[in-house]
Amino acid sequence: MPTEVAFRPAVIDDLPAIMALLADDDVARARGGYAGDLPTEAFAEIDADPRNELVVGVAGRLIVGTCQLTFIPGLSRGGAERMTIEAVRVRSDLRGAGIGRRMMAYALGRARARGCALAQLTTDKRRTEAHRFYESLGFVASHEGMKLNL
Amino acid sequence: MPTEVAFRPAVIDDLPAIMALLADDDVARARGGYAGDLPTEAFAEIDADPRNELVVGVAGRLIVGTCQLTFIPGLSRGGAERMTIEAVRVRSDLRGAGIGRRMMAYALGRARARGCALAQLTTDKRRTEAHRFYESLGFVASHEGMKLNL
Repeated sequence: MPTEVAFRPAVIDDLPAIMALLADDDVARARGGYAGDLPTEAFAEIDADPRNELVVGVAGRLIVGTCQLTFIPGLSRGGAERMTIEAVRVRSDLRGAGIGRRMMAYALGRARARGCALAQLTTDKRRTEAHRFYESLGFVASHEGMKLNL
Repeated sequence: MPTEVAFRPAVIDDLPAIMALLADDDVARARGGYAGDLPTEAFAEIDADPRNELVVGVAGRLIVGTCQLTFIPGLSRGGAERMTIEAVRVRSDLRGAGIGRRMMAYALGRARARGCALAQLTTDKRRTEAHRFYESLGFVASHEGMKLNL
């Protein structure tokens, strides 16, 4: 595998590779996958929002990871933002090589640069390996993550 | 208790009452409470952000509940937004009277009006009554809610 991975904000040309990463996942497949047109409008909305950052990890010309960061302003914790991390994926054939760890370090660096008081994410209770991974980074599973499909 | 509760976006004059609600909570107190200046800058940032809505429930002239809604654009689920609910509070002396249920109905109505595919929240594992409340609304505790203080 390529050893050098660089992280940067996604651009529109990354979208097919990002969608392939999002689809390459058992939980997502069970939800119906990502067949159909590319969500170019949604990409544009994320891209234009100063409190949302879609991140890609790039090795050579290959997109090897992605995540989405949302900075939520709030009244608690001295008025600091909190960072929510969603849609974390690493290419399935490159897992276990430290890419996710480096991507999370990049994400947490973004949070610190903005002065966030807290980083948070939810992870499906079936993803037990992911829980151990996040706990190894210092995350604490202190909360129930509750979802309601609308 | 007043029977009529109306829900609306918060205005700056509501801020002292909102901060009092946020402080009136065992978990928040353990985190250090809310002594000090009002977070007027954070209020202004939330107020100016089209993807954040600070909600208050008002009975007569009394603020009886609050929550913050964040609409997160994303690439999954057909490019639909998801709504995250944070900082849910009901006045402690008015709990059990259905205010929280009506506030959540208002919040979920906002999500549906924006076409959100999903509503989500995290709730401290110590708040067992809150879990039952959210489950009664159809939320499923399918995820671990992981937090990292920065």
